[in-house]
Amino acid sequence: MHAPDLEALKKEAAIRAVALVGSGMRVGLGTGSTAKYAIEEIGRRLAAGELSGVTGVATSEASDALARQVGIPVEALDPRPLDIAIDGADEIDPALNLIKGLGGALLREKLTEVQARQLVIIADHTKLVTRIGEKAPLPIEIALFGFLSTIERLRAVLPAGRLRQNGAQPYVTDNGNLIFDAQIPEGHDIHALERQLKGTLGVIDTGLFLGMAQVAFVAAPDGVQELRPQ
Amino acid sequence: MHAPDLEALKKEAAIRAVALVGSGMRVGLGTGSTAKYAIEEIGRRLAAGELSGVTGVATSEASDALARQVGIPVEALDPRPLDIAIDGADEIDPALNLIKGLGGALLREKLTEVQARQLVIIADHTKLVTRIGEKAPLPIEIALFGFLSTIERLRAVLPAGRLRQNGAQPYVTDNGNLIFDAQIPEGHDIHALERQLKGTLGVIDTGLFLGMAQVAFVAAPDGVQELRPQ
Repeated sequence: MHAPDLEALKKEAAIRAVALVGSGMRVGLGTGSTAKYAIEEIGRRLAAGELSGVTGVATSEASDALARQVGIPVEALDPRPLDIAIDGADEIDPALNLIKGLGGALLREKLTEVQARQLVIIADHTKLVTRIGEKAPLPIEIALFGFLSTIERLRAVLPAGRLRQNGAQPYVTDNGNLIFDAQIPEGHDIHALERQLKGTLGVIDTGLFLGMAQVAFVAAPDGVQELRPQ
Repeated sequence: MHAPDLEALKKEAAIRAVALVGSGMRVGLGTGSTAKYAIEEIGRRLAAGELSGVTGVATSEASDALARQVGIPVEALDPRPLDIAIDGADEIDPALNLIKGLGGALLREKLTEVQARQLVIIADHTKLVTRIGEKAPLPIEIALFGFLSTIERLRAVLPAGRLRQNGAQPYVTDNGNLIFDAQIPEGHDIHALERQLKGTLGVIDTGLFLGMAQVAFVAAPDGVQELRPQ
């Protein structure tokens, strides 16, 4: 399959998800190349008069800028629940457990999406896996201070991994932290792994989103599948 | 007791601790009004020729600046062990479990001091408690993004607490995070509490330093006590 086809599939999934957005809703706006299509589609529906009174809560500075550009009023996250959040994922297992964070916004995504009454995931079919960690590395956000020691502590749990780079420099998140991308070998209980990683000194959070998504729209060449946790 | 007496006691404790520093050692430098005396004493001993070849690893920008000012060469933290770290504490129980972080540097202190072969605590006698949480609030470092929701999650565990302010603004740590100062009521198992708090979404780390200190020098009007974990 050619890359342009994957883009078309991501856009199809995004359109299906945005059909769940109603007027007056507060919507969590994801980050990344798939979430971008959802933000654009919300903007299109607002401009077309199909929706009104929608406000967005952005999970990154990039999504904040894009939302404003397409005409979605953006608010800061506050403790009120969000009606819905729409975001991409890097891996989706049959229980709709996710790896997220390839876009670098995992902490803000998790902080936002945990407050959504409904988290809707959009993806192309290449993101479906039978086991979390099968294809994608797990992004782990770590403090800049002492990061080499934190990486040593992480390697004791997940030996294979590397600090994410941005050219010759370490990649820095919107929160001023770094990302360690780790391979998850077979045989890990992902719930136990999440507790162990989050409990590790220097770790801010991980890209494991467990039990958070209610529905996923996954686009394949033969159409968009609507998946619920199994 | 008058405040100047407490200052004199803190200085006495610091001098006792710095006697453990030998030439050539890499020393973790704490943060706060007591740790300041230790940094000054290391500088004095270097200037007097009693010590040589000492390098410091600072736990805050303030301690970094003070160390350079008194002539201690400062290095960034790297994965090598530190020979010793010297720092104050806000509470010390008989097992030498600590509350730290009133100075706002808890994450950098913990990241640095976990690498020390020996963590030496210095304090005046008012910091001794029979139960962690007896007198001092527990500082909890939290992400700025979504902090109001993180505080709601924390209040479900520790209902009494408040966001630390710096005048009319929230206090911001060296890492760009905020501090929630929480009361620990009686009856908490502090090890379980630490795991629960660190596992809470939005929490970076807490001021609980459990099982980390090997010795404490605690100054009272009748002299300096050397305490070991009981």
